[in-house]
Amino acid sequence: MESSYIADRTSDGGMNRLTLNDDDKKVREWFIDQVKNYGCTVTVDKIGNIFAIRPGKNNALPPIGLGSHLDTQPAGGKYDGIVGVLSALEVLKTLHDNNVETYAPIAVIDWTNEEGARFSPAMMGSGVWAGVFTPEWAYSRTDLKGAKFGEELERIGFKGDTPVSYEANKLSAHFEVHIEQGPVLQAENKPVAVVVGVQAMSWFSVELRGREQHCGTTPMDSRADTLLTAAQMIVAINAVALATPGGLASVAVINATPQAINTLASHVQFNIDVRARDDALLALLEAEIAEKCEEIAAAAQVKIEVWDRFWTSPRTTFDETMVSMVRQSASDGGFAFREIQSGAGHDSVYTAKRVPTAMIFIRCKDGISHNPAEYSTPEDIAAGAEVLLGAVLRYDAY
Amino acid sequence: MESSYIADRTSDGGMNRLTLNDDDKKVREWFIDQVKNYGCTVTVDKIGNIFAIRPGKNNALPPIGLGSHLDTQPAGGKYDGIVGVLSALEVLKTLHDNNVETYAPIAVIDWTNEEGARFSPAMMGSGVWAGVFTPEWAYSRTDLKGAKFGEELERIGFKGDTPVSYEANKLSAHFEVHIEQGPVLQAENKPVAVVVGVQAMSWFSVELRGREQHCGTTPMDSRADTLLTAAQMIVAINAVALATPGGLASVAVINATPQAINTLASHVQFNIDVRARDDALLALLEAEIAEKCEEIAAAAQVKIEVWDRFWTSPRTTFDETMVSMVRQSASDGGFAFREIQSGAGHDSVYTAKRVPTAMIFIRCKDGISHNPAEYSTPEDIAAGAEVLLGAVLRYDAY
Ligand SMILES: NC(=O)NCCC(=O)O
Ligand SMILES: NC(=O)NCCC(=O)O
Repeated sequence: MESSYIADRTSDGGMNRLTLNDDDKKVREWFIDQVKNYGCTVTVDKIGNIFAIRPGKNNALPPIGLGSHLDTQPAGGKYDGIVGVLSALEVLKTLHDNNVETYAPIAVIDWTNEEGARFSPAMMGSGVWAGVFTPEWAYSRTDLKGAKFGEELERIGFKGDTPVSYEANKLSAHFEVHIEQGPVLQAENKPVAVVVGVQAMSWFSVELRGREQHCGTTPMDSRADTLLTAAQMIVAINAVALATPGGLASVAVINATPQAINTLASHVQFNIDVRARDDALLALLEAEIAEKCEEIAAAAQVKIEVWDRFWTSPRTTFDETMVSMVRQSASDGGFAFREIQSGAGHDSVYTAKRVPTAMIFIRCKDGISHNPAEYSTPEDIAAGAEVLLGAVLRYDAY
Repeated sequence: MESSYIADRTSDGGMNRLTLNDDDKKVREWFIDQVKNYGCTVTVDKIGNIFAIRPGKNNALPPIGLGSHLDTQPAGGKYDGIVGVLSALEVLKTLHDNNVETYAPIAVIDWTNEEGARFSPAMMGSGVWAGVFTPEWAYSRTDLKGAKFGEELERIGFKGDTPVSYEANKLSAHFEVHIEQGPVLQAENKPVAVVVGVQAMSWFSVELRGREQHCGTTPMDSRADTLLTAAQMIVAINAVALATPGGLASVAVINATPQAINTLASHVQFNIDVRARDDALLALLEAEIAEKCEEIAAAAQVKIEVWDRFWTSPRTTFDETMVSMVRQSASDGGFAFREIQSGAGHDSVYTAKRVPTAMIFIRCKDGISHNPAEYSTPEDIAAGAEVLLGAVLRYDAY
């Protein structure tokens, strides 16, 4: 049957600013306009990361980075990433309005394609900058319609000249404000958190092959029903994660073919998102999931043609000095806070590979994210920006 | 992840002659060319059904229909439907080459959209002819890309002038040869079967709504994971059918949205194909499936937004006189045969509502159908055509 509900998916006030679409172009142009008000020069690198640099006393020093992202999920909210860039702009504005000259220059950064929703994997712009992916590999990534990342980047006019590299385009540190995207701060009634690290995660693509068979004439016990097998795997993957405290596993993307109501699917592709509090638990979870899926496939006469862990990110631990500056800033600001490990990936995961990095989380309503209903109060966002400013000034003094 | 395997789905020699695509246009033109060799006039009705009529002695009589279909599944074989039309052409050729003048005229029919794979439901052309669907409703049906049946029919130039109606465009009877699409004849080593009827069947469209949630931050126990719920339903639907001898249930089409690897699906649409040997068992199976799915949805905090039985076809019993003519023809021809009830739907289901109807099945390899590997031997096909000829001549004499 035709499905009619896809078109209205952001009618509820959500965002559909998928990486490199026309809205992404517009918000980038808006961002460049804004930073010009605060005496910044703008640099765009070859992967579209935008660096807005406000000079300091000593411009031979690499800038202190304050970054996050402006792209969203296909049915995303108005806070994930965006609050990080706006907090950084708020820091710029405060410095500017108060004529504060920092010792080091400050760079406010819009990292390209943090979400990984249109072009996987996530945190691509910061990943290329950190040398984890090559620009060529990133350019070759395609979306569900076959559009290439590199071509879309040129189309919106954001393939810059600056090399994408932590060596050629240096930062001295990276701070990031982000909504928590989880329920902990709300439960503990605290506006902000000091983020000490990010959990381990990996993404898989799985392809199964069974047989096209007539739904009306093939006995139930002589089928190689590929969609049924995928469904059994999805149920099993969920059960493994439910039985593993500290672990998560999710299947959110599925494609079956030939999509005819009276012909059993012969090919099914799906993705798995696996996460765990540390690398050992992630490895365990991945192994259990693989084992269960192999058992299911064998029993079903369905072949696992592809089992591809196409992206993984080990647990990240942020720099202790940077974390203590955030902690000090939150404490001196009089904010109730706690320390937390992030469940979501962030650009800071990749900057942390190259420069001292820390993050600040802001409480968000009911832990909802990747959803139009995402929400944080203006007061909590202001608290996050204030903690950021304090941490940046502390780092600049240090 | 992008899926790349869809394009090659008929590289293995299968057919992709989906209703009203360019290949369907070509085969229709070929069909019209062929029948002109046998002294036929051609009529195309408003739904694209093609009637090739060879006059008899008494042309005031409605013609005896010999019909099936030339459309295929998206990754279909070369036999399903096609063998029925070719057998009918073979009968025409035999009458023509031997200068046989029948008493009644003979109509060889290519019914439009038997498969229902591109535009659901199945058996649409014969269904409109039988008055089960209106032409307007058929025109409004859309494929997965949103193309309308009516517009595609005009595009390929096969929207004719003849009214689509068993009253305005009469037949006196309908015979159909078809491959069995099941394993019974091969197991019993018989070339043909006399079809006594068709099992009951119905098609559902189901739409579920849960919540978009972040895969990396949403605890396993606080999710409304719509794709997981759909997977649990698919597993349960299969279990219900496995536990119901005489019943079948299959899920072959699924659409999840927003299709982002790190956002739980919030909407899932899937279809169910339910069949049973009789109407009472079909009703039982449908009720059990609905009950199980309601339980699953309730436990998952996911809402069943649509549960639409958009098509159903009760068990069909063919006309006893017609069936006995087929039986007599098979027996006199010296063919080993058995009687059988069809698992698949056929145009004969709808003609049977209006005129005496019977079918002949041909053995097919391993019961495989709706698959490029579909196969019947030339000998078995010849047997089917011979039985058809004998039955038609018997009916004409009667
Ligand atoms: N913060 C965020 O939602 N990032 C997207 C990458 C992920 O799935 O964790
Ligand atoms: N014969 C055949 O495959 N018809 C399609 C309708 C059905 O699914 O039974």
